[in-house]
Amino acid sequence: MVTPMVTAGPAIKRTHLVVSALALVLVGQASAQTPDALPSWNDGAAKKSIVEFVERVTNEGGPDFVAPAERIATFDNDGTLWSEQPMYFQLAFALDRVKALAPQHPEWKEEQPFKAALAGDLSTVSAGGEHALLELVMASHTGMSTEEFATIVQDWVATAKHPKTGRLYTQMVYQPMLELLTYLRANDFKTYIVSGGGIEFMRPWTEKVYGIPPEQVIGSSVKTKFQLENGNPVLIRLPEINFIDDKAGKPVGIHQQIGRRPIAAFGNSDGDLQMLQWTAAGSGARFCLYVHHTDAEREWAYDRKSSIGRLDKGLDEARTRGWTVVDMKQDWKHIFPFDKR
Amino acid sequence: MVTPMVTAGPAIKRTHLVVSALALVLVGQASAQTPDALPSWNDGAAKKSIVEFVERVTNEGGPDFVAPAERIATFDNDGTLWSEQPMYFQLAFALDRVKALAPQHPEWKEEQPFKAALAGDLSTVSAGGEHALLELVMASHTGMSTEEFATIVQDWVATAKHPKTGRLYTQMVYQPMLELLTYLRANDFKTYIVSGGGIEFMRPWTEKVYGIPPEQVIGSSVKTKFQLENGNPVLIRLPEINFIDDKAGKPVGIHQQIGRRPIAAFGNSDGDLQMLQWTAAGSGARFCLYVHHTDAEREWAYDRKSSIGRLDKGLDEARTRGWTVVDMKQDWKHIFPFDKR
Repeated sequence: MVTPMVTAGPAIKRTHLVVSALALVLVGQASAQTPDALPSWNDGAAKKSIVEFVERVTNEGGPDFVAPAERIATFDNDGTLWSEQPMYFQLAFALDRVKALAPQHPEWKEEQPFKAALAGDLSTVSAGGEHALLELVMASHTGMSTEEFATIVQDWVATAKHPKTGRLYTQMVYQPMLELLTYLRANDFKTYIVSGGGIEFMRPWTEKVYGIPPEQVIGSSVKTKFQLENGNPVLIRLPEINFIDDKAGKPVGIHQQIGRRPIAAFGNSDGDLQMLQWTAAGSGARFCLYVHHTDAEREWAYDRKSSIGRLDKGLDEARTRGWTVVDMKQDWKHIFPFDKR
Repeated sequence: MVTPMVTAGPAIKRTHLVVSALALVLVGQASAQTPDALPSWNDGAAKKSIVEFVERVTNEGGPDFVAPAERIATFDNDGTLWSEQPMYFQLAFALDRVKALAPQHPEWKEEQPFKAALAGDLSTVSAGGEHALLELVMASHTGMSTEEFATIVQDWVATAKHPKTGRLYTQMVYQPMLELLTYLRANDFKTYIVSGGGIEFMRPWTEKVYGIPPEQVIGSSVKTKFQLENGNPVLIRLPEINFIDDKAGKPVGIHQQIGRRPIAAFGNSDGDLQMLQWTAAGSGARFCLYVHHTDAEREWAYDRKSSIGRLDKGLDEARTRGWTVVDMKQDWKHIFPFDKR
């Protein structure tokens, strides 16, 4: 587009000169003092490695330059962008849904894992293993249209509170990671979520919370079925697994939905290891980062033996390969947006 | 970004004035005579309906305005963006692949459908129905890594010729549809392919041919498996269907990969009907268009009884609902880029 410039009359020309001079001054200031794009990150190896990578791949004419369209960055969600303790937030959602649906299911009072779920007895639910969790998720996440489910999720994230902090779950996001997402996008990266969590559990709020639109969310899913209800087309969520976007499923999900290999990947557990391996193995400059939960005071501390978010093989591989490992306690000035002073 | 303007010295100021005056002249011309974004479309109801829709949804402040992020347009590929006669181009690819692989499979000389495929006997292949086609596709499209397959596809589209026109298959694209894709993107639409064809058969060339990047291609797929080969991670294509992106599968694929409902959808067969229904049923302004193959001389003429690209129910529904139906013979000045005079 061509912007016309007003050129008639000496008074206007003078104004023009003043504006131009001001522009020069502003440009001068900007180059003299670049604002810190990652203010919640302490200076250290982790922050330095991020900035150096971004500068390398955006340096046009440099040996590691990557065209903007190929600047794909993938982020795990649970434990990488928001907390995952004392349980995955989606499990809290499932338990709340089971309670809400209980009046229509009197049989749940006697049947496991529903009986334990209704009693808030998490250890019995956990003892049932993956099968029990799957039963809870299927009973609470399916049988409605995709649009009805999105509304249920929206209502839940707008009101449900974290048991420890009393904050909305969507406030339990990591301030340094929000800054990192913004920094990458400002450098023409396309940021994706690649999570073991349900794709439709995330999409209703990721744009508002992370600036990540629905088409850039990859996750686990149930099958859906297209049908006409009184002539109105709907997609019905079926109690059948479509895809598990975890571990070796993450590169598969990335390839299916993006069709390009990321140049940067961010995770916090062994469930992210294959995504990081897949990212690291591409040609050209690559960046892999693990968030290591080391701050028992401000968040939680866990790694090799945790039942949630176990980071064991990944920690070894990160050290062998020289991937960036963020020590949350040391590297992050703030953890959550609400603890910013 | 602030662009500094040079303001020192009267000579430079004079140059500046000349440039500004020129800019004004150019802007004046642009508004006096808007160039036709769809020059290969004859003036008529089809072209008018497209332009009117785009103007409605981009008119900020108007009742039908749609935010750019929601301007999703989905296009079928075979018969909508490129030809599909005398056979789906992907079948031609599969037959060529079977021939290339035959030396490693001496048993194919006696086994159907391979024997017929090697003899170029399409009627016997077709008589075997979907099962025979699936056997050919699985034998020719799987067993290698995703990267190896992409290279095979790239090599094929760079050399294989259409049996009737002698043109590369990627030249057999519809010039009016290329203009439409460009026109929509110039109006901040995000254009997607939603095809029954293989997603990995399309992605290696859709960006170059249609300006549609890999992440905006939705299609049928086989399962892939992540594995480490001598420490190097690869995705291996397995001889197992993952998803069929056709008919009722199209809205499912759209929801899975985009997570938003399109506001405009373009197809040419009954296989696209559910995508158009799903698109039409959203709230706000919607646009659905069928390409009707009516030009036996410049392309092919077929609809209600064709074995490829049958348009029967869709034609009735388009007329009932007032969707746009393009009569290729009447509405398109040119069909292919190579018949532009």
